[in-house]
Amino acid sequence: MDKLSPSMFIGVSGNDIISFGSGQPDLPPPKEVFSCLPKYHDFKYGPIAGSSKLRQALADQNRGFTKDNFVITNGASEALDLVLRAIGKPGDRVLLHTPYYYSYRSLVEINHMEPVFVRTEQGKIDMADFEEKVHGVRAVLINSPSNPTGRIQDIGSLKIIEKTTNDLDITLISDEVYKDMIYERENYMLSGSHVVTLNSFSKTFAMCGFRVGYLFSNDRSIVDMAIAIKTHSSMNTNILGQEMAYHATQVPREFIESQVKIWKERRDIIYKRMHGLGLDVWKPEGAFYILPKISNPQKFVWEMFRQHKVITYPGDWFGADGRVRFSYALDTEKIEQGLERVENYLAKG
Amino acid sequence: MDKLSPSMFIGVSGNDIISFGSGQPDLPPPKEVFSCLPKYHDFKYGPIAGSSKLRQALADQNRGFTKDNFVITNGASEALDLVLRAIGKPGDRVLLHTPYYYSYRSLVEINHMEPVFVRTEQGKIDMADFEEKVHGVRAVLINSPSNPTGRIQDIGSLKIIEKTTNDLDITLISDEVYKDMIYERENYMLSGSHVVTLNSFSKTFAMCGFRVGYLFSNDRSIVDMAIAIKTHSSMNTNILGQEMAYHATQVPREFIESQVKIWKERRDIIYKRMHGLGLDVWKPEGAFYILPKISNPQKFVWEMFRQHKVITYPGDWFGADGRVRFSYALDTEKIEQGLERVENYLAKG
Repeated sequence: MDKLSPSMFIGVSGNDIISFGSGQPDLPPPKEVFSCLPKYHDFKYGPIAGSSKLRQALADQNRGFTKDNFVITNGASEALDLVLRAIGKPGDRVLLHTPYYYSYRSLVEINHMEPVFVRTEQGKIDMADFEEKVHGVRAVLINSPSNPTGRIQDIGSLKIIEKTTNDLDITLISDEVYKDMIYERENYMLSGSHVVTLNSFSKTFAMCGFRVGYLFSNDRSIVDMAIAIKTHSSMNTNILGQEMAYHATQVPREFIESQVKIWKERRDIIYKRMHGLGLDVWKPEGAFYILPKISNPQKFVWEMFRQHKVITYPGDWFGADGRVRFSYALDTEKIEQGLERVENYLAKG
Repeated sequence: MDKLSPSMFIGVSGNDIISFGSGQPDLPPPKEVFSCLPKYHDFKYGPIAGSSKLRQALADQNRGFTKDNFVITNGASEALDLVLRAIGKPGDRVLLHTPYYYSYRSLVEINHMEPVFVRTEQGKIDMADFEEKVHGVRAVLINSPSNPTGRIQDIGSLKIIEKTTNDLDITLISDEVYKDMIYERENYMLSGSHVVTLNSFSKTFAMCGFRVGYLFSNDRSIVDMAIAIKTHSSMNTNILGQEMAYHATQVPREFIESQVKIWKERRDIIYKRMHGLGLDVWKPEGAFYILPKISNPQKFVWEMFRQHKVITYPGDWFGADGRVRFSYALDTEKIEQGLERVENYLAKG
């Protein structure tokens, strides 16, 4: 068995493979996104912060911000990397809630900082543990709805996190890439002068491959530092990707609502089925992930892939030992087929 | 006078501005690059290392390499950043020859490493200084032809650098983004098992805004580490940018030759004119930069921009105090107009 790593699976597809792996929508982007392609002819560098038109469109959708509060990035991945580089120095500590998206821990460590892990109960932050560990960290990173749990944080907890980090002068990074995919209530956007919000066109508009994300903050010193770093580390985000993202901002809100309806149906199917299989599993409230308990996850992931052509991700990548992450961003027929294979595999075990 | 920084100027254009600033071709990419746009419909993540088709095309053009030696990146900027992150740790030293491209120093410092500067004489590396300073560095970064000098390194020197770094087990990073733009001789590609080469579609194919670059190396441990980092820091490079880059690899070689002819004509014009103005200047042998000595460069750059709408970059960004960088990637008429404004300004001074 090879050592499992995300780059083994990302972009892998084909012959009868059913992928619950990579977190990307199977449904295409709105058609408007492709509408700008045939006549596109620009080719020069754009502003490092991102196209003025796109930043203005985002400011129009986020009350209290102007375009100068935004930086357009190579996905939310680069947005987080830039924020960490902008605010941190080697040895600084960054608080994450476990389970966490695997890149969080890796980016903290790539930047020579140290992750501090806060416990969750069924995906909900243990606020006593938070209050104990928050002191002295450089930043707190919140992801609600969460990848890999699909859980959202209680609004009461989010308000305490906002206030505590503000009082302690700690940067609060809010990864809201799944904010438009919530099944149980409205999103609660973390806000404040010390908050940096990350978002992306990848999930809401199914534009993963184009890598357009953004960060925004009322703290202009962080925004400006992120731009200064990006000037050297990658320069402007692909100008054509930005143009496509601009067209996505002009798509009527109904597009998003129709997508959420589809995700919710799929959530209901996979949750019911896993529950029926007797798996220990938390009901996803947003995003498109579910994280059942599975014995010997490494073996499960490897054998499901090699023998049964089903891609899943081991929980330990996410700080969730003993669990396996399934993304349900695929059509219901494939979800059923894939779970059929899982059921047969588990029955033999 | 505001503090000058690259992000003030990058992407700035318009009303009568003549920009000798940003290093980007004014001539458009080959038409083949846009040919794939009208029918493009992919949208999912691609492999982190880059599209297989594009890496194969690059391997076909670089003898001795397979597609697995390549990583496609967000421009050569991200390629360098990934290499530094892959090989370095805080406190490591990286050798640069001065004057250097401004991002080199910044990226070394952003990554908590320390630049070591080697002298040049009229842009040619002082080999005695190199031999003295190379001991104990983690990497040597060579850029020939050079941004900002336009000078190429002697083949004899390059061979010594290859051998010395190999003997001392030092990674040799070769930024060859201008390798196709040399006026005096063929390019000499640095090679060896310890060499990492950086390149880009930005200059050769005028695709700056699309941000497609790459790194390649026979040292698979560096390639694999770069992929592992990119998995978290930005994921795949924009898939449509990669498709456009693939089409660029299929363009007949005559395209590049016709471009070089144009660059050489412009080089001749700007060099002759600056020489005629009595400026202390080295004859560019490649790339599209020239770096005259100008007294009070900060004032010159600021006033030329604010009063005369001419963008130039102060030499101190490049470790070249007392000089100013002019990019001559613009048509001959604008070069003449811009230099007219410079001449008038200097005459008054």
